[in-house]
Amino acid sequence: MGFIENLNWRYATKKFDGRKLPPDIVEKILAAIQMAPSSFGLQPFHVTVIEDKKLRESLKPHAWGQEKIVSCSHLLVFSADSKTTKRTEDYLKLAAEAGRTDITEDPEYDYLKEVKKYIEGIGPEWPAKQAYIALGFAMAACADLKIDSCPIEGFKPAAFKEILKLPSNLDPKALLAIGYRSSDDTHVKLTKLRFSKKDLFDFR
Amino acid sequence: MGFIENLNWRYATKKFDGRKLPPDIVEKILAAIQMAPSSFGLQPFHVTVIEDKKLRESLKPHAWGQEKIVSCSHLLVFSADSKTTKRTEDYLKLAAEAGRTDITEDPEYDYLKEVKKYIEGIGPEWPAKQAYIALGFAMAACADLKIDSCPIEGFKPAAFKEILKLPSNLDPKALLAIGYRSSDDTHVKLTKLRFSKKDLFDFR
Repeated sequence: MGFIENLNWRYATKKFDGRKLPPDIVEKILAAIQMAPSSFGLQPFHVTVIEDKKLRESLKPHAWGQEKIVSCSHLLVFSADSKTTKRTEDYLKLAAEAGRTDITEDPEYDYLKEVKKYIEGIGPEWPAKQAYIALGFAMAACADLKIDSCPIEGFKPAAFKEILKLPSNLDPKALLAIGYRSSDDTHVKLTKLRFSKKDLFDFR
Repeated sequence: MGFIENLNWRYATKKFDGRKLPPDIVEKILAAIQMAPSSFGLQPFHVTVIEDKKLRESLKPHAWGQEKIVSCSHLLVFSADSKTTKRTEDYLKLAAEAGRTDITEDPEYDYLKEVKKYIEGIGPEWPAKQAYIALGFAMAACADLKIDSCPIEGFKPAAFKEILKLPSNLDPKALLAIGYRSSDDTHVKLTKLRFSKKDLFDFR
């Protein structure tokens, strides 16, 4: 089955069966997140990978009691990193270590200065948007691996931040529950709703 | 080659060779965008698919003169749709046509009211974030099809909106140039930079 068919196979899984994903599968999903492109390559986000069931139980009340937080195998918490200047400095170190002199020694482009100016201009949600590309890659990887997933925006970021003891620069933006669908998840049988190509696209 | 390997194969293509993608390939990339999940299923975005070279020439000065705008096969302009109430109403029509009474006749959940409240709470960049998931799906599809792509945030949204005569509710947020890499694109030889797994993830 091809990639596009697998995207049709996937659905927002409402009920997981509690089985654990094998470590090599989790590894592949995380590799897709790591490989996701981001503006300037900064990857201004962090993902907390939660297997611990007790911890997920304690998060559940702050996600409107959604059962899938607990019945999934792993819960991924995507946080945006607001410390973009620090992130740019770290990126320049990474570039130096890899011998990317096209970045570190460009005489016409002061990376740190230009990125700072750009990010200030584009608004505070810029890191979150980069995290959403990675969220897309994670879901595409899950579909390709025939692993179930459900993206979740309905949760209280401040409570998650506190319970997970995240540093001040990280703000939870979206969750992704991954695992195996329960055989009695009624949502799998529902007609998938998507706007038409005519609605979504126009051609010039 | 597997999906994850293809993600490693892809890179932000700086120079395309001008060749046209076959229509069935473009169709598959658009299908991936259409299948991308979104919060509440609203798909609050629109994609302008530009093949017309003259139109792309006229957009180029408003994207810092980036040559790839013109040398690619197609330029996709992802716009966020700010008319979320209208979008929700259209979604309810779509649900009604598909017989999704779980959505249209839920006695405990007033979809229109709840979605409106949710979107007002989450901030104005919510539609753009959904577009970024679809952008991620488009790039993942390209990688899987071994088609080159380059995401672009460096452009002037207001100028693009004016030239493309987009309606007031659509605001361009990101571009995706797709096509075939030029054999002399020096960027393909550069070491790919990604933050380490240790940096990006923590495990609980």
